[in-house]
Amino acid sequence: MSSSFGTIFKVTTFGESHGAAIGGVIDGVPTNITIDLDRVQWELDRRKPGQSSIVTQRKESDVVQFMSGFFDGKTTGTPIGFIIQNDDQKSKDYDHIKDVYRPSHADYTYDKKYGNRDYRGGGRSSARETACRVVAGAIAKQILETIGVDLFAYVDQVGAIKITGEVDVNEIDNNPVRCANAADALKMEEYIKSIRKEGDTVGGSIVCEIHHVPPGLGQPVFDKLHAELGKAMLSINAVKGFEYGSGFACVEMKGSQHNDLFNQDGSTKTNHSGGIQGGISNGMAINMRIAFKPVATLIQDQETLNQQDEIVVMQGKGRHDPCVVPRAVPIVEAMAAITILDFYLRNKTTHL
Amino acid sequence: MSSSFGTIFKVTTFGESHGAAIGGVIDGVPTNITIDLDRVQWELDRRKPGQSSIVTQRKESDVVQFMSGFFDGKTTGTPIGFIIQNDDQKSKDYDHIKDVYRPSHADYTYDKKYGNRDYRGGGRSSARETACRVVAGAIAKQILETIGVDLFAYVDQVGAIKITGEVDVNEIDNNPVRCANAADALKMEEYIKSIRKEGDTVGGSIVCEIHHVPPGLGQPVFDKLHAELGKAMLSINAVKGFEYGSGFACVEMKGSQHNDLFNQDGSTKTNHSGGIQGGISNGMAINMRIAFKPVATLIQDQETLNQQDEIVVMQGKGRHDPCVVPRAVPIVEAMAAITILDFYLRNKTTHL
Amino acid sequence: MSSSFGTIFKVTTFGESHGAAIGGVIDGVPTNITIDLDRVQWELDRRKPGQSSIVTQRKESDVVQFMSGFFDGKTTGTPIGFIIQNDDQKSKDYDHIKDVYRPSHADYTYDKKYGNRDYRGGGRSSARETACRVVAGAIAKQILETIGVDLFAYVDQVGAIKITGEVDVNEIDNNPVRCANAADALKMEEYIKSIRKEGDTVGGSIVCEIHHVPPGLGQPVFDKLHAELGKAMLSINAVKGFEYGSGFACVEMKGSQHNDLFNQDGSTKTNHSGGIQGGISNGMAINMRIAFKPVATLIQDQETLNQQDEIVVMQGKGRHDPCVVPRAVPIVEAMAAITILDFYLRNKTTHL
Amino acid sequence: MSSSFGTIFKVTTFGESHGAAIGGVIDGVPTNITIDLDRVQWELDRRKPGQSSIVTQRKESDVVQFMSGFFDGKTTGTPIGFIIQNDDQKSKDYDHIKDVYRPSHADYTYDKKYGNRDYRGGGRSSARETACRVVAGAIAKQILETIGVDLFAYVDQVGAIKITGEVDVNEIDNNPVRCANAADALKMEEYIKSIRKEGDTVGGSIVCEIHHVPPGLGQPVFDKLHAELGKAMLSINAVKGFEYGSGFACVEMKGSQHNDLFNQDGSTKTNHSGGIQGGISNGMAINMRIAFKPVATLIQDQETLNQQDEIVVMQGKGRHDPCVVPRAVPIVEAMAAITILDFYLRNKTTHL
Repeated sequence: MSSSFGTIFKVTTFGESHGAAIGGVIDGVPTNITIDLDRVQWELDRRKPGQSSIVTQRKESDVVQFMSGFFDGKTTGTPIGFIIQNDDQKSKDYDHIKDVYRPSHADYTYDKKYGNRDYRGGGRSSARETACRVVAGAIAKQILETIGVDLFAYVDQVGAIKITGEVDVNEIDNNPVRCANAADALKMEEYIKSIRKEGDTVGGSIVCEIHHVPPGLGQPVFDKLHAELGKAMLSINAVKGFEYGSGFACVEMKGSQHNDLFNQDGSTKTNHSGGIQGGISNGMAINMRIAFKPVATLIQDQETLNQQDEIVVMQGKGRHDPCVVPRAVPIVEAMAAITILDFYLRNKTTHL
Repeated sequence: MSSSFGTIFKVTTFGESHGAAIGGVIDGVPTNITIDLDRVQWELDRRKPGQSSIVTQRKESDVVQFMSGFFDGKTTGTPIGFIIQNDDQKSKDYDHIKDVYRPSHADYTYDKKYGNRDYRGGGRSSARETACRVVAGAIAKQILETIGVDLFAYVDQVGAIKITGEVDVNEIDNNPVRCANAADALKMEEYIKSIRKEGDTVGGSIVCEIHHVPPGLGQPVFDKLHAELGKAMLSINAVKGFEYGSGFACVEMKGSQHNDLFNQDGSTKTNHSGGIQGGISNGMAINMRIAFKPVATLIQDQETLNQQDEIVVMQGKGRHDPCVVPRAVPIVEAMAAITILDFYLRNKTTHL
Repeated sequence: MSSSFGTIFKVTTFGESHGAAIGGVIDGVPTNITIDLDRVQWELDRRKPGQSSIVTQRKESDVVQFMSGFFDGKTTGTPIGFIIQNDDQKSKDYDHIKDVYRPSHADYTYDKKYGNRDYRGGGRSSARETACRVVAGAIAKQILETIGVDLFAYVDQVGAIKITGEVDVNEIDNNPVRCANAADALKMEEYIKSIRKEGDTVGGSIVCEIHHVPPGLGQPVFDKLHAELGKAMLSINAVKGFEYGSGFACVEMKGSQHNDLFNQDGSTKTNHSGGIQGGISNGMAINMRIAFKPVATLIQDQETLNQQDEIVVMQGKGRHDPCVVPRAVPIVEAMAAITILDFYLRNKTTHL
Repeated sequence: MSSSFGTIFKVTTFGESHGAAIGGVIDGVPTNITIDLDRVQWELDRRKPGQSSIVTQRKESDVVQFMSGFFDGKTTGTPIGFIIQNDDQKSKDYDHIKDVYRPSHADYTYDKKYGNRDYRGGGRSSARETACRVVAGAIAKQILETIGVDLFAYVDQVGAIKITGEVDVNEIDNNPVRCANAADALKMEEYIKSIRKEGDTVGGSIVCEIHHVPPGLGQPVFDKLHAELGKAMLSINAVKGFEYGSGFACVEMKGSQHNDLFNQDGSTKTNHSGGIQGGISNGMAINMRIAFKPVATLIQDQETLNQQDEIVVMQGKGRHDPCVVPRAVPIVEAMAAITILDFYLRNKTTHL
């Protein structure tokens, strides 16, 4: 009911951070597509903990094992099942929060909803679940490549530090922040390190661009392309806002400024529409920006509530990210790829 | 495939602006609830054209006729079918755009997608479709009232003019802008009038608040409460951005500022979470902000493309809104009500 | 939640027998297909009451009005909305059953489920709802014709009278029973008349055949082609059983008899598989048989239960069918057409 | 798209018979229910190969491993992920059918649909997939027990041998046929053995009964309770027919015989309705009968087609069931349990 995403290319995930494994099922995969499984693992490695000094130092190997859906190196059209073992399960690390609701975490709301919460590592609310999205997204990306679509995401802001230099896509994986400009990346990295020293955390934002999307993807009313992209992004842990094209800046614009005038080939001179008009792709680059809040776990003591309705002091400890955006870049890309592929397949039914 | 919204409380709409009627089906309505149908019509009147001097002067009476789903004034649990006749169909008004793609409209993308576009009044891409959402939302609102949930929306910005005075909910329907502060409303109204005189249009934004939502609504992973609210809002015509709680401002915040510390009763001292933690309501007020672009139809000549791949000058005419937000307020409320009711019903299945 | 059928070509219906109208929305219609609306009405006329002396003599004109989804005589790819006015609403006819549960009707179960039942004419449980299916099916049929699929249904048994003569498709609409053999039709007609004189009713069965279905339609596991066809047929009022290919006769067969051996062109020498192997069409004719129970309304007094938990004698009156199968033939065809078209469209996403 | 079953209690499966593992995800599980995992394994053992001399002698241990969804022995409301390793993968056994389409198997149709078929052991079309259904069904059964629902299935016919003695539920698991009468079971067993000696196979049928279902389950129109049960059963490999209550026998009955007259407590004197009226449970026992075709794999040579469009002789070999019904009993029960639980949960949303 809530663990699936997509209409035709459909991803279903399962798993808590401290169970035996997380994993998922990818259904609706088009048949006969060659997938490079090493590249899937590579995407997972971009998300995994411990990859640099500015992310959490938890040790999770995050190796994906595929159970089904491939034959002779190609997709068979049948569902792809996969698991990722949980191996660094230091459940004891969580004893101190066993009956405590951490501020701005999902502890309180899960308890109110379910009444049987796996408190270890956040249980199902853990961002560990997003590893499964990266697996599905990495497959979607490769399928999209066969029709010419390419996409990428990068960090464009950490705290008050914005990307100001030129955007260079090749730079993204050259720095631990995954910023698209080397100089700005360095500033962001320094800032994250200083924040970590304070035992604090900081927010950030990510830009995602999708190029060469054929015109015609998206459904007119409720399932507008940007509405599903919005849902996709807002479903990622810690996201607080989504905008595409002109985004919130459109509020202060006039129609005469905002309208994208056509070139003779159907492209437009500006792209305030962000590649989408009336919920349907127009062939221009789709771009969007996603806001991530500062991680709620601090290495500082905080007052909080426990299950006995008492206000208690909770010790700040654990191995957490000072800033979530460097590891969120592959997740954003994954959700974008899943969404676009799903709409590509849906659109195949528009014409008989 | 694309004309339905919701999982249990499910709204399906049909209709073009220049067909015989628009309408819809509301399925999954809980049984035995008394609905005041006059209040449904009242909500529709808040959305209808011609209601004030700062909105489009098209004459559409927008009278809803219910076909099914009620008996003795109460819901029966069976689907509610309804239609709204289209009566001001001046199709001739659209002859000048018959084979022209208006800039930043859905004309071009619909043609690329479907190849058989009803050009009159935007066809299915017309915001007229949102009247059906208002009908469904008005019913959802009344059902939510029986469990104590109340919600409202108001314009908080038009162009660069922001609400700066106190928010007074009772003021919203006292002014044609639907701003929640009388003095600010006046400034906005004046500005919209000046924009209209220029033959131009302007963007704006709307805040929506939902109070007394019980804790526990929302699904943990993909169907997070705010992700569906985001999709709901982004599916409204002209929306370019969505944020909730701290929204985009979270990017520049530290965790130590952003965390919402608990009171002993489970409420929180601040509400940067916007009433939602881990995708699940926590009992605090849910708040969000939605950005609307300036209307694309101008009363100015614009260069554009026609179906023969020629750049032509398109005359600016027609009866359009200079700013969309005053009429969008009831639509935002409707989508919020539909979404919350749907999650309320979904949540009934969490426990056996 | 329960008023929709189909995954891509999706039909949603609304309406009670004694409300203002019944109707529906057909979503996922492929674009640019010419539809002959007179033929849609013709199919409706095949289902309508009063068409012959062996069916109910209620007067319902059953005229469909289309509200949206067509432009210049062709589908636009946007949802088709339609209504059928209810005009012979003699609600008084039902006063005698106002607080009585008729035996083997849905009165008791609706009351237990909803607690607010529109008792007039069966409300939502009335077979009148199936008129909406016929509208959607008539459109699906025409779309299927453009890809060469044709289908038909006929009555093959009424009470103990089976079709024994040759099946002649052209005969089906030549007799009021809709049997595919003239001589057998006559016997069935006489029998239905004698049953009606007794104030009684009788069961019957219908065979449906679908020809020239391309191989490859159907999904491997839960959504097997015959499983969805079975659901489609079992969802029609009064249906008690469904079989395809060899059907229940397979129980007594050996594998060496039952296996369909191949011809060199991929066709098979026999067709015990009923055109479907492993849930997927193989290109042979799809055939199935559907059992309909005798109508529960009798022109005889019956003991029954009322809402006050008393056993009372209920008078037998009203205008009802002595045998449901003659009017059910177009409904069976409609559900078959909707299902096959839906799978055809779904299958378009199997390959990139 | 096709690998999920259910609306709220939703089962998604993956896996081929010769991949690394099969498995699935169960979503929408109500929270806080204690599940006895040994009983889940016990149900799997009822389905597994090699359990008696009249079923296939393949060695598959079929041990289920749960990955998520439980905490402290209870469900958490989050998805249950599980896998079953494939261990007896004698892929070589299938070399002789590598480019051959076995008669009345899914080989030909899968090739036409997907073009990349895992020929080993039937790939995704293998009945091995049903082990995953048994896992989900065993959990559903235990959840249903907590609300008093119990259900069972038994073999009522093998070839021409019908159950004629008294039905004794306690007998079902006492004999390898899973017939509900010991004497009849013996006859069936002998017959199956004789069939196996011939290298042939034979069909059979299974009866399923569900007791103490609360009135009100089922949706009025398309998702009638028996329509979903029918789909559930027809989706099991080898099923050719489904009937409930009076079933196909209703065709020859009159309304005056068929109507179920009420007792004063709402129960009925007869149960031709099979516990369902108008698609909604009425509190009486739900009963149905399901026809299974003879297994298509014979230990006899058969002429067949290969991928080069040649008619060839295919050698009969492999380890297959001479009759499928003994091992299908737990699968029927599983699908019944999944369906009833799903409708129970759906029905919770009927009232606010």
